[in-house]
Amino acid sequence: MATTAIIGAKALAKGLITPTGLVTELPEIKRVELVSFKNLIFGGHETRRSSFKQSVGQLEDTGINIKPQLLSKLGNGIKGIERDIKIGVTSNPTRGKSLQKTVQRLIKDITHFRKRHSLKNVIVVNLASTEPPVKEGSHTRTLTGFESALSKNKKDLLPPSCLYAYAAFKSGCPYINFTPSAGSSIPALRELARQLHLPHTGNDGKTGETLVKSALAPMFNYRALNVLSWQGYNILGNSDGRVLNNPKARESKVQSKNTTLTNILGYKPHSYVGIDYVPSLGDWKTAWDFIHFEGFLNTRMSMQFTWQGCDSILAAPLVLDLIRLVELSHRRGESGELPHLALFFKQPIGSNISDLHHQWLIFSKYILEKVSRKCS
Amino acid sequence: MATTAIIGAKALAKGLITPTGLVTELPEIKRVELVSFKNLIFGGHETRRSSFKQSVGQLEDTGINIKPQLLSKLGNGIKGIERDIKIGVTSNPTRGKSLQKTVQRLIKDITHFRKRHSLKNVIVVNLASTEPPVKEGSHTRTLTGFESALSKNKKDLLPPSCLYAYAAFKSGCPYINFTPSAGSSIPALRELARQLHLPHTGNDGKTGETLVKSALAPMFNYRALNVLSWQGYNILGNSDGRVLNNPKARESKVQSKNTTLTNILGYKPHSYVGIDYVPSLGDWKTAWDFIHFEGFLNTRMSMQFTWQGCDSILAAPLVLDLIRLVELSHRRGESGELPHLALFFKQPIGSNISDLHHQWLIFSKYILEKVSRKCS
Amino acid sequence: MATTAIIGAKALAKGLITPTGLVTELPEIKRVELVSFKNLIFGGHETRRSSFKQSVGQLEDTGINIKPQLLSKLGNGIKGIERDIKIGVTSNPTRGKSLQKTVQRLIKDITHFRKRHSLKNVIVVNLASTEPPVKEGSHTRTLTGFESALSKNKKDLLPPSCLYAYAAFKSGCPYINFTPSAGSSIPALRELARQLHLPHTGNDGKTGETLVKSALAPMFNYRALNVLSWQGYNILGNSDGRVLNNPKARESKVQSKNTTLTNILGYKPHSYVGIDYVPSLGDWKTAWDFIHFEGFLNTRMSMQFTWQGCDSILAAPLVLDLIRLVELSHRRGESGELPHLALFFKQPIGSNISDLHHQWLIFSKYILEKVSRKCS
Amino acid sequence: MATTAIIGAKALAKGLITPTGLVTELPEIKRVELVSFKNLIFGGHETRRSSFKQSVGQLEDTGINIKPQLLSKLGNGIKGIERDIKIGVTSNPTRGKSLQKTVQRLIKDITHFRKRHSLKNVIVVNLASTEPPVKEGSHTRTLTGFESALSKNKKDLLPPSCLYAYAAFKSGCPYINFTPSAGSSIPALRELARQLHLPHTGNDGKTGETLVKSALAPMFNYRALNVLSWQGYNILGNSDGRVLNNPKARESKVQSKNTTLTNILGYKPHSYVGIDYVPSLGDWKTAWDFIHFEGFLNTRMSMQFTWQGCDSILAAPLVLDLIRLVELSHRRGESGELPHLALFFKQPIGSNISDLHHQWLIFSKYILEKVSRKCS
Repeated sequence: MATTAIIGAKALAKGLITPTGLVTELPEIKRVELVSFKNLIFGGHETRRSSFKQSVGQLEDTGINIKPQLLSKLGNGIKGIERDIKIGVTSNPTRGKSLQKTVQRLIKDITHFRKRHSLKNVIVVNLASTEPPVKEGSHTRTLTGFESALSKNKKDLLPPSCLYAYAAFKSGCPYINFTPSAGSSIPALRELARQLHLPHTGNDGKTGETLVKSALAPMFNYRALNVLSWQGYNILGNSDGRVLNNPKARESKVQSKNTTLTNILGYKPHSYVGIDYVPSLGDWKTAWDFIHFEGFLNTRMSMQFTWQGCDSILAAPLVLDLIRLVELSHRRGESGELPHLALFFKQPIGSNISDLHHQWLIFSKYILEKVSRKCS
Repeated sequence: MATTAIIGAKALAKGLITPTGLVTELPEIKRVELVSFKNLIFGGHETRRSSFKQSVGQLEDTGINIKPQLLSKLGNGIKGIERDIKIGVTSNPTRGKSLQKTVQRLIKDITHFRKRHSLKNVIVVNLASTEPPVKEGSHTRTLTGFESALSKNKKDLLPPSCLYAYAAFKSGCPYINFTPSAGSSIPALRELARQLHLPHTGNDGKTGETLVKSALAPMFNYRALNVLSWQGYNILGNSDGRVLNNPKARESKVQSKNTTLTNILGYKPHSYVGIDYVPSLGDWKTAWDFIHFEGFLNTRMSMQFTWQGCDSILAAPLVLDLIRLVELSHRRGESGELPHLALFFKQPIGSNISDLHHQWLIFSKYILEKVSRKCS
Repeated sequence: MATTAIIGAKALAKGLITPTGLVTELPEIKRVELVSFKNLIFGGHETRRSSFKQSVGQLEDTGINIKPQLLSKLGNGIKGIERDIKIGVTSNPTRGKSLQKTVQRLIKDITHFRKRHSLKNVIVVNLASTEPPVKEGSHTRTLTGFESALSKNKKDLLPPSCLYAYAAFKSGCPYINFTPSAGSSIPALRELARQLHLPHTGNDGKTGETLVKSALAPMFNYRALNVLSWQGYNILGNSDGRVLNNPKARESKVQSKNTTLTNILGYKPHSYVGIDYVPSLGDWKTAWDFIHFEGFLNTRMSMQFTWQGCDSILAAPLVLDLIRLVELSHRRGESGELPHLALFFKQPIGSNISDLHHQWLIFSKYILEKVSRKCS
Repeated sequence: MATTAIIGAKALAKGLITPTGLVTELPEIKRVELVSFKNLIFGGHETRRSSFKQSVGQLEDTGINIKPQLLSKLGNGIKGIERDIKIGVTSNPTRGKSLQKTVQRLIKDITHFRKRHSLKNVIVVNLASTEPPVKEGSHTRTLTGFESALSKNKKDLLPPSCLYAYAAFKSGCPYINFTPSAGSSIPALRELARQLHLPHTGNDGKTGETLVKSALAPMFNYRALNVLSWQGYNILGNSDGRVLNNPKARESKVQSKNTTLTNILGYKPHSYVGIDYVPSLGDWKTAWDFIHFEGFLNTRMSMQFTWQGCDSILAAPLVLDLIRLVELSHRRGESGELPHLALFFKQPIGSNISDLHHQWLIFSKYILEKVSRKCS
């Protein structure tokens, strides 16, 4: 996903591709002063054992078809990046340095990156695979509790996504949590963001089945149709799929997907979200949803949909959109959760609006206000 | 559809069924003072050669499963209705009385019905099968032109749906056009409605594939995804399906369905709406839609949905909703087209909003204003 | 399922319904001398707490639409049956009588039933819900082992399906195992059937997703297409669905469904069979299968199917078919497993042919031989 | 399709790809002495205005993803081919030379091609777009009639596919008609093939929806399920799709597809085959089939399938298979229609077997006989 986003941003900067899939390039949205693609510099942490070049090579194996011509035109723009990619932190609690040391390393990496490129603004984005749900406790509830667990090196309590969010904030950077992992969504870190006047947003980019669900579910309300059951099955074959085959990691994802329906309908129908790993699909996720509903005179009817999308292709432009929108917020002095970005997430931090259309209205209104302030 | 609506209204009046499928029974909507189901009296014109009792008997053959217990409980409530059902006007231009005579008969039937039951308000609803598109000309453009064609007995220019709308208005009644036929949507009759301060609404109840389409299409805009093709295939087996097997009648329907997409997306993708007659399906319509779209880095993806609904069961409650909402408008002195009812139609008269969510916002706002006016 | 089969048989005996769904009524099959529906007498064991009359009443709740007129015409034919239905044996090992006593009771019930109606031939059919897989051991491998476990009252080793099969054989009756439970398929009981010269057949009636799979999978072989993944998801809401929501019971079912694909393709693609309980569906099972395959020049393609069938309606006629075909075998002196009946099962005992077309060829050939022997 | 077949054959000859999709490379089939891919030489007629190199370039635009590495490895093997590709004959009756001259040119081209490469055997294959159905008359019924129309230059009676078949036979070559056009299937040309002892086969390669249909339909027979309706909708975007958007050409295709169902079921359910042009799909054909059927107790159930395949990728290996199998027949002295090849066609010449499994049995038996004759 990161590789796709970087290639896309470079291609956009050079005008080599159309901005299809980018919300921030819609005519009504691009009127706000967003950072241009030319001014985006990428660096990061890689948790897999592959170089950026290898990741580019692997795109084709997962079914992402980037034309060789495009890659060769980007040649120089991409070459330098390897230097800015460091080894990422994973959740193996028995290995490696203490949590304190880890956080210090993260802060150092961010700070060096900022200095090397003389950057005004650095945005930290979590695109790593899903972690199991975090145990709740004083370490999630208050900043003091969090920092105490950190100094006591409680590796089983503080997952990498939280360490990254903490390090980002401590480095003066906004944080975007594109995964269903805890990240900055725990009260302890929301407290820190407020203290330091930093914006942050998440959780879990809404790209496929849940996107459709959040567009479709309101229809049943508008027609007073009673949803009896909503069964959803997702099959996918990328590393995300492999991780989600692990029941613990799946739990975070399914929780993230499940709230949508109840939030929109206002009641809880029988529902299920399955995620299964099908290696041959690569990055192409297929979802089948079956919706059983009741209408007039208690007649039962049904609809089903199949979604066949490429995960990274759907997610990458949203990552770029979020970077630009969070950078805007930071520049404008906005801080804390950014509820106007609920549109982009399965489990928006600081918002309980799941209805896609409602989310769009809130986002549009925010943009309109920004634009009119600019004009006045 | 009419039979289902009447049975449903009678069952609602006696509290025998839940109001599933009725928009006007949603908690936030029912706060306006709508006519109660107990106060609704039904009569009408039947264009087929079957009595009301026979129509009830045929419901099961078309796959509508109304429990015998319910019917026996309604016994008395339904018996009287036969007296109020007259022979309907169809579009055979070579047969029957002159247009003037026909219109006079319609006005007489409406007036007698109103008197017999001492009704405050009579609402005329068109639920007949789809007519071919009407030829445009002075008879559609101005009231003078229309009345001139009427007096010259131009049977090929003025279809039954227009005669019914004209007769309704001349009898002081609001008119609801639930079909894709011309009805009151031609400028000539919109002029008459304005003159006589009567409300009217239409065209073509939005119950199935188009409903889903209008809920789903905005999603592609919100994500800047480019819809390349949207193919829709409808198969159905009721008399509506038989009529739509006729290419001329289908034309009206397809026109009605086609505008939705372009209106919502703001551009015209390759699209197609097929309607085919499959007798074994009876009243159960199945629609399959295939949507081909382009995302980031010009990657092509797709989604498909299958809708399996019972036409009459989906339409009947909307007919009751519209009767109640148009009656409200009439009582409150509103006249002309009722754009706040766009939510209910494939081709709303007086509105070019096709996006279901936008339509809902407009409708909700209208209701809220009515409620606050009531409270203040 | 049993209720539906009995009502169907009675209606067939009276000529009230067409024999749609009955293999034994196909013109080419009915030429063998099968027992007529008039000569079938039904009795049985009920494991639920409901009378036959109540079961009939529940059919509608599960979405099986038997016309009230049909039921009233069957009135007398059905009334008597209650007397022949006894309380069934379930798998609660802590309760009830010893295994020996239970088997004696089963034998007594069968014997009385045979005497009361002066029957030539009694066929025992297992239609109870799926049991968890049986533990293998000497009790499954040899008759001596089985009878030793029986006399030692090893309730956790011998599930009801095996006790019923044992009791059937000991009463001189053929046995049909329509479920994925062990039944007569364990070597110990196959030994007993051979000893007593009794025919038996099973396991697990092939009615829906697996039926389609076994018709479709050979196509990929014929075209040298390489199946990469075959994912199947079943959702259903009857008591079978409730039982299969239990992971242990599901194991039996999934095992039964899984062998089909490997047997037909000759290799093992990535595959999965999910079964989920969706109460609102009642007896209507919906299955979605997604097949990912590779063709020429390593191009990946896919197909998907959705099956929407009513479980009891699909299974009931097969139960009647099997009763007639096993009765024929018994009358003709055939014994042991009946591999020509593989056509009817997901996991045929005594056959490793899973390809539906191959199964049909074997069955047709068997019938043809029976017919020609009859003629000569 | 031709381009894909040639690239595939060249890649197979060099061992660069696995033989997925090739029936003649199945272990049980390849035991007969088929011509090796190394010994296949390609030439042909191109009816479009594009060179072979351009056609290769266009593959990607239509969604066929052949790796650049593969193409570069084939470099030399492909270069020479341009010389052997001449301008093809299309059906514009007002333009060009007389029919006699055209046939003479075709014969000359075939003869030169044979000589230039010193070939033992030349097989002519028709892969051109679908022609409208041919008018029946003495020109289709007898060879004399055909040759009379030829000499009288009746351009509206004799379509290109028939001219090619005629020229092939007159040049001593077998003919394969992979399209639904008339080709060698008219009695006049079947007469010629018999006279000259030449084998020929067709019509219309069975690659997608009809393939699935012919695998699935027998299942309904085996279970005595009554098919009420079978609706099929095909959408595709290649030049074949563009041609089939023309109602006249579509007629041939739909006729070809329609016989399958009635042949297999033994009765004619309500059925429909739609073909629509959706440019964005390129060579990727998507088909949706909806099957409505009746089971026990007159209960109606349904299944649907979606097929998403790449037309050329599915067809190209069959073209290679047919070339090898027809070459085998020719070498072995077989002539006339080749009913054992029905497996490959929607409308097999000389066979009324449409059931895929039955076709496979016939084909397997033929191969087995060939193999045993070889061994003995």
